[in-house]
Amino acid sequence: MAFAATGSFAAAVSKAGGLGLIGGGYADLNWIEKQFYAAQPEAVGCGFITWAIDKKPEVLDQTLDMNPGAIFLSFGNPQAHSKKIKDKNIPLICQVQTLKDARHALDCGADIIVAQGSEAGGHGEKRATISFVPEVADLIAAQFPNALLCAAGGIADGRGLAAALMLGADGVVIGSRLWASDEANVHKNMLSAAIKATGDETIRSKVMDIARNIEWPERYNARVLKNDFTDRWHENIDQLRENAEIESVSWKQAWEDGNISIANTFVGESVALINNIESVEAIIKNTVAQAESLLRQDWR
Amino acid sequence: MAFAATGSFAAAVSKAGGLGLIGGGYADLNWIEKQFYAAQPEAVGCGFITWAIDKKPEVLDQTLDMNPGAIFLSFGNPQAHSKKIKDKNIPLICQVQTLKDARHALDCGADIIVAQGSEAGGHGEKRATISFVPEVADLIAAQFPNALLCAAGGIADGRGLAAALMLGADGVVIGSRLWASDEANVHKNMLSAAIKATGDETIRSKVMDIARNIEWPERYNARVLKNDFTDRWHENIDQLRENAEIESVSWKQAWEDGNISIANTFVGESVALINNIESVEAIIKNTVAQAESLLRQDWR
Repeated sequence: MAFAATGSFAAAVSKAGGLGLIGGGYADLNWIEKQFYAAQPEAVGCGFITWAIDKKPEVLDQTLDMNPGAIFLSFGNPQAHSKKIKDKNIPLICQVQTLKDARHALDCGADIIVAQGSEAGGHGEKRATISFVPEVADLIAAQFPNALLCAAGGIADGRGLAAALMLGADGVVIGSRLWASDEANVHKNMLSAAIKATGDETIRSKVMDIARNIEWPERYNARVLKNDFTDRWHENIDQLRENAEIESVSWKQAWEDGNISIANTFVGESVALINNIESVEAIIKNTVAQAESLLRQDWR
Repeated sequence: MAFAATGSFAAAVSKAGGLGLIGGGYADLNWIEKQFYAAQPEAVGCGFITWAIDKKPEVLDQTLDMNPGAIFLSFGNPQAHSKKIKDKNIPLICQVQTLKDARHALDCGADIIVAQGSEAGGHGEKRATISFVPEVADLIAAQFPNALLCAAGGIADGRGLAAALMLGADGVVIGSRLWASDEANVHKNMLSAAIKATGDETIRSKVMDIARNIEWPERYNARVLKNDFTDRWHENIDQLRENAEIESVSWKQAWEDGNISIANTFVGESVALINNIESVEAIIKNTVAQAESLLRQDWR
């Protein structure tokens, strides 16, 4: 959750019993430093887009000096970074989108694998949580028994948490539901849009990255709420590239202004399950309580 | 599971405690009659592609006269068919791929909704099981409390079954795992391919329908194991259409011959969880036993 997951957001997650992650995303050191400062005294981790720190490895080095609770890498090959993280005894969390990448991340020494399904908001790929998680669980059980597994994608309440545990996960990574919190740094218009939307209204697309001039590797795209911008460009990528200069100015301005018909709201399919904006503490408490209640039913 | 789900297959499912469905698919009356005969004395239902019976409503009429245990409709609008099914007091199961379609099917009087995620094998659409099921569960709880809900897509063992129950489903529809059984009508080469494959190796595509000259509505495509045929044509649909005459002959012949580099193996992402071919009875027994064991753990 680049941009949305600030230091105070991450601190609220850790305070509520989770492991809060600063959304280090594209590796802007100045911003990351501010967030670690804001998160004090809570222990929080930091997430990075792997291919972004490939280009700026010094940002990872400097983040490691801030004594993060964990480093979370997604979207790329963790191999160039894993040794320096593990040498500092900082837990390495690798989010993966394919079984092949799960195996590679485990070979690189990942302590925790996050199996991310396509239903997740923001960047991701093709696999779906309900079959991907047990497949990775089987790999871990057979070959990497010390690694832990989290499920990500489509989990926004206690039903999803309980389901993930049944699938073989040790825990979950929750994005969209925590994004829709008092503490996340999200424009209020996007929050309103998320409350109204059904899960039918999201799309995986590359148009937002083109509009923002961010060169994502081909295999990844991002899930957002459909709007006029995706309606216009999703099937016309080449034309968008031709008009990128004009469109990027208007998209970025719309992002600042909270103009949700142009700038896209980054959420997953579980947006359907988001009906209010609450504190991070309330969201985590309610999610855990609902999962406990489901798991403790008398299933005899 | 058109073609694969024969009468003896459906009977085996019913005998093992499930509700077996004949894969009536494209509505070939002669084939369907044979399957109902083969299924005796077990009570089995019959599944249809909704848009196929729009074109041949008489096949549904005649199937209703065979006293099916249920009619299962997917891929289209059930409205033109629901009244005649319900007038005979035959349970109507509607498989849906969007929340919008779930609401419509419930308005049409569906007794059971099957919320099908994109991870499913064969035809389907975009939503993912883990977030789609709770969303439909909420709709049913609020407005159609007498309807039941099944989850479909990505469920191939007791982990998936237990997860689906946590998500709010009353039951599950299992395709791929039962397809990989002694009783299903599947070429042995396709079964071998499924046993070897990981979940990374499937793709949703329209090329198989073009190769078979079947005009599916634009919104649907089918999940299969990738092979030379999808590698060659998936990104070159227009070119495939130009070569459809030649390609369709070779694809159909490959289907007959079990040439899996041309004809595609129809399975979902849960193919990853299929490691053997067993009897329908063993599959159902193991799935239920695993789910029970998970649900009965002491989660306190």
